Amino acid sequence: MNEFELIRHYFKSSALQRSDVPLGIGDDCALVAPKPFHHLAVTTDTMVSGVHFDERLGPFELGYKLMAVNLSDLASMGAEPCWISLALTLPEVDQGWLEIFSLGMAALAKPYQVSLIGGDTTRGPLSLTLTAQGQIPIDQALTRGGAQPGDLIYVSGHLGDARLALAQDTIACLPLTRQKALEERLFKPTPRVRLGELLREVATSCIDLSDGLAADLSHILRLSNVGAKLSAEKIPVSEIAKGLLGAEEAAREALLGGDDYELCFTVPADKVERLHSISGLGQAKLTCIGEITQERQLMLTYNKQPVDWNLKGFMHFG
Amino acid sequence: MNEFELIRHYFKSSALQRSDVPLGIGDDCALVAPKPFHHLAVTTDTMVSGVHFDERLGPFELGYKLMAVNLSDLASMGAEPCWISLALTLPEVDQGWLEIFSLGMAALAKPYQVSLIGGDTTRGPLSLTLTAQGQIPIDQALTRGGAQPGDLIYVSGHLGDARLALAQDTIACLPLTRQKALEERLFKPTPRVRLGELLREVATSCIDLSDGLAADLSHILRLSNVGAKLSAEKIPVSEIAKGLLGAEEAAREALLGGDDYELCFTVPADKVERLHSISGLGQAKLTCIGEITQERQLMLTYNKQPVDWNLKGFMHFG
Repeated sequence: MNEFELIRHYFKSSALQRSDVPLGIGDDCALVAPKPFHHLAVTTDTMVSGVHFDERLGPFELGYKLMAVNLSDLASMGAEPCWISLALTLPEVDQGWLEIFSLGMAALAKPYQVSLIGGDTTRGPLSLTLTAQGQIPIDQALTRGGAQPGDLIYVSGHLGDARLALAQDTIACLPLTRQKALEERLFKPTPRVRLGELLREVATSCIDLSDGLAADLSHILRLSNVGAKLSAEKIPVSEIAKGLLGAEEAAREALLGGDDYELCFTVPADKVERLHSISGLGQAKLTCIGEITQERQLMLTYNKQPVDWNLKGFMHFG
Repeated sequence: MNEFELIRHYFKSSALQRSDVPLGIGDDCALVAPKPFHHLAVTTDTMVSGVHFDERLGPFELGYKLMAVNLSDLASMGAEPCWISLALTLPEVDQGWLEIFSLGMAALAKPYQVSLIGGDTTRGPLSLTLTAQGQIPIDQALTRGGAQPGDLIYVSGHLGDARLALAQDTIACLPLTRQKALEERLFKPTPRVRLGELLREVATSCIDLSDGLAADLSHILRLSNVGAKLSAEKIPVSEIAKGLLGAEEAAREALLGGDDYELCFTVPADKVERLHSISGLGQAKLTCIGEITQERQLMLTYNKQPVDWNLKGFMHFG
């Protein structure tokens, strides 16, 4: 076996077995058996060294984050994650690096029972591409295009810490444990997989927050042909962010910040009670931050006062 | 829109529409509707600049070849190609390059009705990853593991020209038209999609020839737990190769040469008649080059004389 065959062998032996994978790694294609009466959700994300990550990200975090961003895309559609294909381009084969990287992937693959079914391993500048597939009962997928005027806008978890972790000068004054807590949010985001599945029965639209609340919400507004009123003081932020920036600036940063991988979704007013009765089943805190409006613009207030936080460049629905 | 959003928009508008793609490019995931009673075949191939191709490969050929190698993997399983996801990493956004690249992809996507459903576009060293999906009626997939002693071994088309095209010094003496003909086989291989689908009813195993006949046949032998007798003089080679190298050396090169993307498959003796009655439906010439044996070794003859062509390094089934 050459070294790249060794890698394939390595991934093959560490891949989780699923009964719906009649043929995994090792042939020209993998074979999977989709469930009847389901659609497949398919997503692809690439992470390139020097662009999406730097040397602060070790192999474990790299494997973890690659899984997280793809699972987050599946979560935002309400899909049950099933199968992944990994395209790994490496400058050299480092067995130790590969083992830790695959542990990082397994840390999310195992709890969600996701099976690595194939991929490709090549030599070249470090780059990672994952294609992830999930299943959704037909016509139950959550898209960006279903928000209706009157729907309430929710986000999960809290926002802005990942962006803050990137501002190394700003956070340098914090105790190291707090810096690490912020970095944890950047390097090890939690994909809201179970929440996404549970939202299928109540949400009219959903997106995961990868580019920031302002940018990502604007995708929902554009594709749903609606606008929104946002109460910025309601945007959930961490105690660390509030302590460091003050509440208002923390809220503004949370609107701009990417990489949170929380879900933003809309729920009709008459389903809010149902939402709260199921939300205990997910682990994420849910916060209502505004309402969908007919008029196609974003009205932003902070403690009921209109504010203009220069979001134009981040919004793409005009 | 930023430049990468422009690319997504560009691919979205040029993607072929299929009725089994309820949601294409533009949301967190694409949605596809698999056929009932079918398995999915999934394959991923990466091409990295400087590793898998050089500056001789223009954007058209790059798009074409990326499609060809993935469709060839689907063909070798007998799958009907359906959907592709493209991960494109580019040092810079060049609209002209992208247009020609996507024409190269379309040259194979259109005739086979394959729809681009999503992917990712990032900045970085030029690298292309395609994940392709096809569908196969349950339990009809062709794998590497089904060859039986007594089965006849076939290949499609002719072999070795792609390898010859890489030996620029060797072919420098040829007229330019012949050099170009060889390069055509390297840069624009023909994926045997229809042939693969037709073989489902007669073949016991199948692989596509990407690493060379010796290496790829050995995968079938290893996974089927069998050996083979090969009559090397029967290996189909081109007139160009025969004229340049002589018949025997051309046959040896064909055993070693990769990048042919023809199919190698096995057929039980009692289905050979059936094979020839359907082979007219595919466009590829089919040639019987040997037979599967019980004993797990490769016996190679040339005009009935045993030959040892130093293939050990290329075989992985001992």
